[in-house]
Amino acid sequence: MRGEKVYEGKAKILYADTSNADQVYMTFKDSLTAFNALKKGSFSKKGEINLKISDYLFQLMKRAQIPTHWIDRVDETTIRAHKLFIIPLEVVVRNRLAGSTAKKLGIPEGKILAWPLVEFYYKNDALQDPFLSDDQVLMLEIATKNEIDKLKGLALQVNQVLKEVFLKISLDLVDFKIEFGKNKMGQIFLADEISPDSMRLWDKETGERMDKDRFRRDLGNVEESYNEVLNRLENFMKTKGV
Amino acid sequence: MRGEKVYEGKAKILYADTSNADQVYMTFKDSLTAFNALKKGSFSKKGEINLKISDYLFQLMKRAQIPTHWIDRVDETTIRAHKLFIIPLEVVVRNRLAGSTAKKLGIPEGKILAWPLVEFYYKNDALQDPFLSDDQVLMLEIATKNEIDKLKGLALQVNQVLKEVFLKISLDLVDFKIEFGKNKMGQIFLADEISPDSMRLWDKETGERMDKDRFRRDLGNVEESYNEVLNRLENFMKTKGV
Repeated sequence: MRGEKVYEGKAKILYADTSNADQVYMTFKDSLTAFNALKKGSFSKKGEINLKISDYLFQLMKRAQIPTHWIDRVDETTIRAHKLFIIPLEVVVRNRLAGSTAKKLGIPEGKILAWPLVEFYYKNDALQDPFLSDDQVLMLEIATKNEIDKLKGLALQVNQVLKEVFLKISLDLVDFKIEFGKNKMGQIFLADEISPDSMRLWDKETGERMDKDRFRRDLGNVEESYNEVLNRLENFMKTKGV
Repeated sequence: MRGEKVYEGKAKILYADTSNADQVYMTFKDSLTAFNALKKGSFSKKGEINLKISDYLFQLMKRAQIPTHWIDRVDETTIRAHKLFIIPLEVVVRNRLAGSTAKKLGIPEGKILAWPLVEFYYKNDALQDPFLSDDQVLMLEIATKNEIDKLKGLALQVNQVLKEVFLKISLDLVDFKIEFGKNKMGQIFLADEISPDSMRLWDKETGERMDKDRFRRDLGNVEESYNEVLNRLENFMKTKGV
């Protein structure tokens, strides 16, 4: 049973599960934010679309033996998930350089990397999510050396699964952001969502951006692109019999 | 014999050594710059003072078996050094948090760290020397994994030597920046200078800043502080019979 609100973020709300203290209900909102919420927007059904996309992708993660917080869908905008202590890191994996890192290093957007790059950003709105080195993560006692290695290993596994599925539906996975959490025993699980809000997806044929950059950069057709990603993924999952 | 100018940086000039192609002459300038050279200044004898301080400190590095580019002093403002290919990293070691990292992480300046933190910044004026993670250093092919480990190990050794000497002359080594270079065989040497331009030194008794922060933050008595560091170091070296 859905209980009281325990947390509200920019794109999701968490509620207690009154029948199980180790679980939570997670509701996907229609709001869109960018640049540390300096830019705000929304479209109706965004929460629903992101939930559906995430639901498919988390099913694929489970198949690949990646431990996740995702339990099941409750309604159009709500899922049940394992309750976790979120590790305050945005874990970013890049297959091509784009966005902030391309700019910072003076490298043209789109450069294909020889191997995927994993980056950590400190989840802290007041500090504007600063980029951290592994040694800074250790210094801040956000994670141990072993946990850092574990996070990087899991992030690269997630990348492998995502790259393969998006390749099949003619989308180029440029980069994505994921989050992890720990349960009471300290085991690490993939948390949060995986959706066009948290990935850069470029159409293989046209190069068209099919993700939140359409909102960030005012490219228009935000809703249509999110829907297109969902439709392609849905058709792919059907052929897989999911 | 000093030949033609081969490079001029913000605080030093390099000249060819016409009698030895594996060596260079390095002249220390009187100029002071901060904030990627947005702020400029100078005082007479600054080059001379920094050279003397560096000369003492590089002697201590040699005693500690740390390979360095430093050969010997030619005149008041010039030394001879081994010619190196400079690795484009500013290697920063922090014993306390101060400056940019304290600000970025929202931690009060002066916090003592449980263990020294090593950071890499990409030496690139046009990009304003961005902070890099180890994985980004690898990605940019600036150094291999082995070289990164070597650089960190050497940086921590340098820190050990510097911390000890400054403790003896009642100065708290907050942080410092060093650079490394490789010779033709790929061996790594400590390069550049080590002076109040590249360190934060706080007086143990008064907490007074004795380094370039006096210039950066308009605290006055820049020259007097540099001289004070030199005098204390000179007296200490005499007691050591150097």
